[in-house]
Amino acid sequence: MTVDVPQLVAQAREGRPRAVARLISLVEGASPQLREVMAALAPLAGGAYVIGLTGSPGVGKSTTTSALVSAYRKAGKRVGVLAVDPSSPFSGGALLGDRVRMSDHASDPGVYIRSMATRGHLGGLAWSAPQAIRVLDAAGCDVILVETVGVGQSEVEIASQADTSVVLLAPGMGDGIQAAKAGILEIGDLYVVNKADRDGADATARELNHMLGLGEARGPADWRPPIVKTVAARNQGIDEFVEALEKHRAWLEKHDVLDQRRTRRAAREVETIAVTALRERIDDLRGDRRLGSLARRIVAGELDPYAAADELVAGLTGG
Amino acid sequence: MTVDVPQLVAQAREGRPRAVARLISLVEGASPQLREVMAALAPLAGGAYVIGLTGSPGVGKSTTTSALVSAYRKAGKRVGVLAVDPSSPFSGGALLGDRVRMSDHASDPGVYIRSMATRGHLGGLAWSAPQAIRVLDAAGCDVILVETVGVGQSEVEIASQADTSVVLLAPGMGDGIQAAKAGILEIGDLYVVNKADRDGADATARELNHMLGLGEARGPADWRPPIVKTVAARNQGIDEFVEALEKHRAWLEKHDVLDQRRTRRAAREVETIAVTALRERIDDLRGDRRLGSLARRIVAGELDPYAAADELVAGLTGG
Repeated sequence: MTVDVPQLVAQAREGRPRAVARLISLVEGASPQLREVMAALAPLAGGAYVIGLTGSPGVGKSTTTSALVSAYRKAGKRVGVLAVDPSSPFSGGALLGDRVRMSDHASDPGVYIRSMATRGHLGGLAWSAPQAIRVLDAAGCDVILVETVGVGQSEVEIASQADTSVVLLAPGMGDGIQAAKAGILEIGDLYVVNKADRDGADATARELNHMLGLGEARGPADWRPPIVKTVAARNQGIDEFVEALEKHRAWLEKHDVLDQRRTRRAAREVETIAVTALRERIDDLRGDRRLGSLARRIVAGELDPYAAADELVAGLTGG
Repeated sequence: MTVDVPQLVAQAREGRPRAVARLISLVEGASPQLREVMAALAPLAGGAYVIGLTGSPGVGKSTTTSALVSAYRKAGKRVGVLAVDPSSPFSGGALLGDRVRMSDHASDPGVYIRSMATRGHLGGLAWSAPQAIRVLDAAGCDVILVETVGVGQSEVEIASQADTSVVLLAPGMGDGIQAAKAGILEIGDLYVVNKADRDGADATARELNHMLGLGEARGPADWRPPIVKTVAARNQGIDEFVEALEKHRAWLEKHDVLDQRRTRRAAREVETIAVTALRERIDDLRGDRRLGSLARRIVAGELDPYAAADELVAGLTGG
């Protein structure tokens, strides 16, 4: 069925959740109208501030995200939430089971929440997350929260899509810090020690502070990632968290880093699309009709295999 | 250093082994002159009869190959031998250690012998063997023997490059037959039970004959693979072997199968080259300069990522 893309985009910008959902499905599902949708969104995107939140299971990520949504809503912002689960084979608009807290916002028309999964293939996340972000951005979200589970390669990839990357920790998960510290120190612009009312919160913050110190002194314009302590379940420290986020955003803009990051993000997006297109062409080669006639010309001595391969590739990529 | 390709080709056609060796090195090594060499060879190739020989270690493959070389030399033919070892990381012009028998022919200017290895990467064999065959063919070899170790995927791939595929067996290796029979029955145009003076030779031939019978009745023009018994070390049965080969060659020509096989071989060759070229372009994408400016246009909202990917790919494959 052909979709009226301009109408759908207009509805999404009015904040109609079904229109947003429909657009995300179109860009996720490799629909024939994918390109039309992406072209329509291009001039509308760029207004949203994209915040990535990552951390091991158990640190209270959903609770923190939910508290953050409340804070931005109070400030009158439209908020999009992308809950990404790289390990889940399930995707779609349904909330994940353990994200009950998020349902506080389910009836708020100023909040759009979407769950995503990798769709079972490597690179799937990198493929669809940027496009869903683009839809939410073009739909007029002021802030987009991208929440991912764990700190693995996929999470690092998602974090690289954000303007600001937040790493969440909780006391008593020191082992996790040790294990993940190499990755964590690369991706965090801001660290949150949640459940800060528990024993060991200060120790976790200290350890983190020490680790961050080791990686310091990268130049005067460099950003020193702050550590914020929160108890998200009781809404403690959330204002300080938002303040730290806004400080980072201001820093990004002042030092021209925001544009650099977005350019890098766009470059990675283009690269992913181009690589996928070339891979598909490789698959297409196998069944190409011209292969037979090129091969016959080789057997007849009229053509060498390299010249034939050139013809084949030129024909494919020109089409 | 730039090579005088026409001169080199002329020398190879005169039978000078160093010129042949140089050409094979040029086509194996992805030299800048690769395309020039392949273009020069294209109109000259097609005269050679390509025989593939495969079998497990211990069946006397080198001895049989050597006996076959002698028989074809006696008939006044120029012979090329390509000894392929998919498991060896070593390549080049040196003979493999256990192929001492072949050194009988080392001083014969009518025989050209070359060892090849996979060069450590998957598909390496499929990549360079057809091109080495092409050099030997264009150099004027009447018969090219491609000898491979074992019956694995690489061997099946090599066998598919031959006009006639020979599978060698030896008595007392019945387990090997059982294990490999699925693959063996697909690729053999002709079976040789070597070491036929040993116990169990008749049993091996019978078992094989039975297995071949199960796959029979594929049509009147179909070829029923004969089973030849040899004692290559004592030159017994070699004339019958050559006779069976020539019978298969005549059958290939009569039923127009030779051209079909060569066309299929050429198609696979073109496909391999084209896939490799596209893979290289994927690698090139990463460092592409245009990526940055395309990304900036996306951030500015002037372009969507798909249109940018199109531009990127078009630029790459057009260049």
